Amino acid sequence: MKATKLPDLTLYLVTDRRLAGNRPLTELVQQAVAGGVTVVQLREKDCSSRQYLELALALKKILPPEIPLIINDRLDVALAAAADGLHLGQSDLPPEVARRYLGPGAIIGLTVENPEQLAEAKNLPVDYLAISPIFLTPTKTDTGPAWGLQGLVQARKLTRRPLLAIGGINETNVAEVIKAGADGVAVVSAICAAPDPELAARKLRRLIEEARTGSF
Amino acid sequence: MKATKLPDLTLYLVTDRRLAGNRPLTELVQQAVAGGVTVVQLREKDCSSRQYLELALALKKILPPEIPLIINDRLDVALAAAADGLHLGQSDLPPEVARRYLGPGAIIGLTVENPEQLAEAKNLPVDYLAISPIFLTPTKTDTGPAWGLQGLVQARKLTRRPLLAIGGINETNVAEVIKAGADGVAVVSAICAAPDPELAARKLRRLIEEARTGSF
Repeated sequence: MKATKLPDLTLYLVTDRRLAGNRPLTELVQQAVAGGVTVVQLREKDCSSRQYLELALALKKILPPEIPLIINDRLDVALAAAADGLHLGQSDLPPEVARRYLGPGAIIGLTVENPEQLAEAKNLPVDYLAISPIFLTPTKTDTGPAWGLQGLVQARKLTRRPLLAIGGINETNVAEVIKAGADGVAVVSAICAAPDPELAARKLRRLIEEARTGSF
Repeated sequence: MKATKLPDLTLYLVTDRRLAGNRPLTELVQQAVAGGVTVVQLREKDCSSRQYLELALALKKILPPEIPLIINDRLDVALAAAADGLHLGQSDLPPEVARRYLGPGAIIGLTVENPEQLAEAKNLPVDYLAISPIFLTPTKTDTGPAWGLQGLVQARKLTRRPLLAIGGINETNVAEVIKAGADGVAVVSAICAAPDPELAARKLRRLIEEARTGSF
């Protein structure tokens, strides 16, 4: 665990091998990190536990020490890979259980799909909340209705926790998402499906920085 | 963890909700235990982590203290439910990792699909080996070729570890499987799909005991 606890959520890559095509995931992640990604979440659904662990270990090996590796859903894989953290959805294991095994130094994130879940998260031992989905997206279809930019503005008023925005975010809307109050944005296809992941990450990162400083 | 370490493998139920039809899993398991099942393994593939944990906790609540609850594949669910053990396949997490987190008192089982895997298991921290599949079965189609009864006889000669036979075992062949050297048999459909799980378990148990004492 190299976590410095509160991670820099600025540009948070969520992996999807299906979108990466023939490119090895490690290569794609390396390029994305070179382009300015600040956190990497391994999220792979259709693989065995062993394969999930192997992917986690492969990513861990290539990530620079300042970029945390977060595992989606699987507490056991996070433990076995000594990852920096775990991202949980509402139908994953309870955050309390994850915290018990991962310890106080690990980064634990939780997806909230509506204001009720945001309120419930108040007493949960998590380090950031992912507001999901901001926009509807073909990458993940098992979500609730979209929060929209107004929903994100409301969410920002309801909590002081770091907020990660996810769902349908790309070059065309990332600035608005940051202006609406997100501490960072998570992207899947905007980087994983890009012909040049490094360039895609670099553009997103620049747009985020510009939105933060108001220079656009 | 209530494990007394080496479990009585005699009649080992592996759950499959799809086969249980409309019957709640807890009810089916209670009936099977009343009929003589000695171990229960929760094996459910198409459910969320949260649901898997909830099923594990529900089974834990109804199982008598002498019947161990083993979780298939998911180390994190085994930890979170404080189950008695974990059953691992060849594409699940490595047994060493499971042992590290579950501790020496937990029951850890490993499926071996061929003599090479049986040999490799020699130095692994597992408590029993599941020889799979003995016969081909429609319940699990991602297996290697069947060991057959002769393969089980060979396996028995290759290791002194407790051997659990699994795959296509039912009333018609259970006696032969025990005679071939299995310490116990695991069944899925022979109990989960039975109209009367208690009766099905009782018959299997009687056939096993008779095969052991040679009174048939």
